[in-house]
Amino acid sequence: MITPEIEKFLAGKNFAYFATLMKDGSPHVAPTWIDYDGKMILINTAAGRVKENNVKHDKRVAISVSDNSNPYEMITIRGTVKEITDKDADEHVDKLAKRYLGLDKYPFRNPTEKRIILKILPEKVFHQKPPK
Amino acid sequence: MITPEIEKFLAGKNFAYFATLMKDGSPHVAPTWIDYDGKMILINTAAGRVKENNVKHDKRVAISVSDNSNPYEMITIRGTVKEITDKDADEHVDKLAKRYLGLDKYPFRNPTEKRIILKILPEKVFHQKPPK
Repeated sequence: MITPEIEKFLAGKNFAYFATLMKDGSPHVAPTWIDYDGKMILINTAAGRVKENNVKHDKRVAISVSDNSNPYEMITIRGTVKEITDKDADEHVDKLAKRYLGLDKYPFRNPTEKRIILKILPEKVFHQKPPK
Repeated sequence: MITPEIEKFLAGKNFAYFATLMKDGSPHVAPTWIDYDGKMILINTAAGRVKENNVKHDKRVAISVSDNSNPYEMITIRGTVKEITDKDADEHVDKLAKRYLGLDKYPFRNPTEKRIILKILPEKVFHQKPPK
């Protein structure tokens, strides 16, 4: 389902826009870094933020990523959060800081926060090519 | 609520990521052009697309816009679709084509589609400044 053509959206410096459900069922959306481990989409956040609170309540999510070099090419993914873990989450955010910012360490670390990874199984993938 | 500082996100070439609810209550998100008329946020789409079908079913939406010149500055808006209209929607999409593409006419017009405007009342606005 995640073809190499789709994977390129998840491996570059493109931001993902991550939609979750508030407790009242209304939508929420915010930008985030994104990663893909070959099976699951990975989003690194801090424990207790809106993203985590929402997916603990309802695991259904959607993700939109546009190509930085051509914003008229984009993918939309709908899926389900299968796991929330703090395992390797600090190393993972450093890896993302390297990719997105060119820095060896995540520079926005807050000593009071615990990093976590949301692991999302992609269930529907839509790829829109640029209009001709 | 929409301060001049917020309004600049809605007046430039920034894409908006527009989250709506599918019929089963799960989230959907896709990029779109965006406009603001001083009171309502305007999204121009075509009748019968996912965006319209979703907001006809549930009017609750969320919007995320990042600043092209600094993607770490962003706004999130949650609100409600108050009106769906085709009035002036063709002129409106031409106006957006001018702003986003520098073209006098919307170049992706499909003769079989009817343009419509979703008018969204912003209810909660969150502005995240870039980390220091």
